[in-house]
Amino acid sequence: MARKNAFYAQSGGVTAVINASACGVIETARANRNTIGKVYAGRNGIIGALREDLIDTSKESKTAIRGLLSTPSGAFGSCRHKLKSLEENRAEYERLIEVFRAHNIGYFFYNGGGDSADTCLKVSQLSESMGYPLQAIHIPKTIDNDLPLTDNCPGFGSVAKYVAISTREAAMDVASMCETSTKVFVLEVMGRHAGWIAAASGLAAEEKGDAPHIILFPEVPFDKTTFLAKVQATVKKNGYCVVVASEGAQYADGTFLTDSGTRDAFGHAQLGGLAPTLAGMIKSELGYKYHWAVADYLQRSARHIASATDVEQAYALGKAGVEFALAGKNAVMPAIVRGSGKRYSWRIGEAPLHKVANKEKMMPKRYITRDGFGITAAGREYLAPLITGEAYPEYRNGMPRYVRLKNASVPRKLKDSFTV
Amino acid sequence: MARKNAFYAQSGGVTAVINASACGVIETARANRNTIGKVYAGRNGIIGALREDLIDTSKESKTAIRGLLSTPSGAFGSCRHKLKSLEENRAEYERLIEVFRAHNIGYFFYNGGGDSADTCLKVSQLSESMGYPLQAIHIPKTIDNDLPLTDNCPGFGSVAKYVAISTREAAMDVASMCETSTKVFVLEVMGRHAGWIAAASGLAAEEKGDAPHIILFPEVPFDKTTFLAKVQATVKKNGYCVVVASEGAQYADGTFLTDSGTRDAFGHAQLGGLAPTLAGMIKSELGYKYHWAVADYLQRSARHIASATDVEQAYALGKAGVEFALAGKNAVMPAIVRGSGKRYSWRIGEAPLHKVANKEKMMPKRYITRDGFGITAAGREYLAPLITGEAYPEYRNGMPRYVRLKNASVPRKLKDSFTV
Repeated sequence: MARKNAFYAQSGGVTAVINASACGVIETARANRNTIGKVYAGRNGIIGALREDLIDTSKESKTAIRGLLSTPSGAFGSCRHKLKSLEENRAEYERLIEVFRAHNIGYFFYNGGGDSADTCLKVSQLSESMGYPLQAIHIPKTIDNDLPLTDNCPGFGSVAKYVAISTREAAMDVASMCETSTKVFVLEVMGRHAGWIAAASGLAAEEKGDAPHIILFPEVPFDKTTFLAKVQATVKKNGYCVVVASEGAQYADGTFLTDSGTRDAFGHAQLGGLAPTLAGMIKSELGYKYHWAVADYLQRSARHIASATDVEQAYALGKAGVEFALAGKNAVMPAIVRGSGKRYSWRIGEAPLHKVANKEKMMPKRYITRDGFGITAAGREYLAPLITGEAYPEYRNGMPRYVRLKNASVPRKLKDSFTV
Repeated sequence: MARKNAFYAQSGGVTAVINASACGVIETARANRNTIGKVYAGRNGIIGALREDLIDTSKESKTAIRGLLSTPSGAFGSCRHKLKSLEENRAEYERLIEVFRAHNIGYFFYNGGGDSADTCLKVSQLSESMGYPLQAIHIPKTIDNDLPLTDNCPGFGSVAKYVAISTREAAMDVASMCETSTKVFVLEVMGRHAGWIAAASGLAAEEKGDAPHIILFPEVPFDKTTFLAKVQATVKKNGYCVVVASEGAQYADGTFLTDSGTRDAFGHAQLGGLAPTLAGMIKSELGYKYHWAVADYLQRSARHIASATDVEQAYALGKAGVEFALAGKNAVMPAIVRGSGKRYSWRIGEAPLHKVANKEKMMPKRYITRDGFGITAAGREYLAPLITGEAYPEYRNGMPRYVRLKNASVPRKLKDSFTV
């Protein structure tokens, strides 16, 4: 097999551990220099390939690459550019292959969610038909935990741990002052289509009566009356109530709760979030003093409290991606397979991309309690192992030492530029 | 000296390390059983004393008390009950002394901010005139960092660390995707009167161009035009802009930015916060894609990433409070005194309560850059040591092990109840 270079790109929303996958890819490729030449990364994801804006990772020291294991966000930049269907935008696919051909790239590692799995598959198919075969491997990543054929997705475990810990800590704060102060605390977390992240907050509860008392899932239609009754009953019983809400919480007709019809003084739609909307509802209907928080990017970038299991799996999947390529595989994704034993175990499996692309794995109904406000023992059993272990970064002067790569450009070879 | 019991209460907003001070008080009292009998804690703060609702901390194991060192929030409950002036509410002060007398309490340890320093002083004075002298010691605590005569306040260092780390992490997230996605990120932090907490976010920046690019302090009048120009210039230069805003940011006339005049569909005032207000301003005037987060209670309860320096000082101040009492002192507060050397050092000093009570220490102007949007080298020099060191709690199954005390009640001795 003639030595070829590899292309690696990060796709979509970044996570606390996507760089751990990059570390797995690059370290494993470096260990196999006879087969894989250099690893080029797309600057800002796949648009870096389209623009022939490649980063030469061989310019980075061993220490810098190792540092990726404990550095959040996307070290090479990411983007949300979704390649359209082959029919709609054949030019982009052809451009990709042209760039890969120019740089002698034989391996395409695409690190992302469902959309990028689809792109990865198409690139593999088209390259074949264009006479420049590529081995295209998808490396899973998404805090949404919604990819099929893998037990879980790297990135999710760390968000889950952050949300569970933050819920416990904030709840202890509220509990200690509820006698005379805040009675209701609302934490808004990510999850537009699936409630996986909100569900993870349920891990904060160990004993009956523990927070969170109410979890709002996008999967469960929101009913204001039932919700307010549950808030009131919880405050009466425990003295306080903690609500964790998925940003995608919605009414039965599919309207998001954040579409509150609220307008500012100039008539613009309110740009506030779900948490203040819920807090306002509670204040005006029940009169309780409230506080609310919106974790937003803090939750998915919180490498300081990443799950060790998540970091380990993210690295292993990057490594496995390269090993799959070395074994001659194409159009596949390494996946996490959970062991069947009582004690949590996992191994790397293999999923064909045509079964991964464009499929969303929703949260099973049996993970949600009958009243729709909590997680079941089965849900807890699934979630708990994913947040296990701490993988602290190094610190200097009280701040985490996250690496900054040089991100040196690969000289361009093509004459024509390409507008994305 | 006849053996007397001690009373300890937590006051005002709780922190990640107020229990470390409690640990210092209780462990030091236990080590001096010949002089100090039992330590009784007020259930939910000073109202516990008024209601004669006392917690017997002697029922807690050594391990449980040690666990307070790494447990956030107020383990005995806290409250925001401010005792009015002696003239206005002499009955409450007299009731306190009556309860103390009934339970043979000779030491009053009050763990809080400026208001509680004032209460502590008054209790000391009145007890003297009522013929039941108490040694009243104030133990400083406030995330607002606004107590005079102490270099810093326990609780602040941990919020500062949380805010600096969260700013860095979220900024890395935004930076990696700004080419095609979010351009402006706004993080709202606590600080209604002083910008100490927002200032701490400045520690996230190590090199020129690093986030946060704009800090909004309550001390600097907000000017929309200058602000938006700075946002735009930053996005043009760096590709993205991170704003950290004190909740107390205000216009020159003293109006809070959150008083945006916004009304919901029912005509109610908008209940959203500062971050969405700023984000909306940026969107409507500059058109940038934005995200925002509101840390709220998450920042002050984040024991998982507490500053080791903060934890150590909180404990030391609790311990010193008891040592001051043992030394016969009264109406004083142990304080942090910063060493004058180049390398950070601190020791415990002593501040008379009449000089502490009802005085707010504002952030020096020289800590804020001339343009009003950042911190100076002097500000950084003051802040940096306070976030140094990590003091991780123990974990079990991926979650921090925070203690839950039994909080057994002390049998009541007084016949009459007291309505707070």
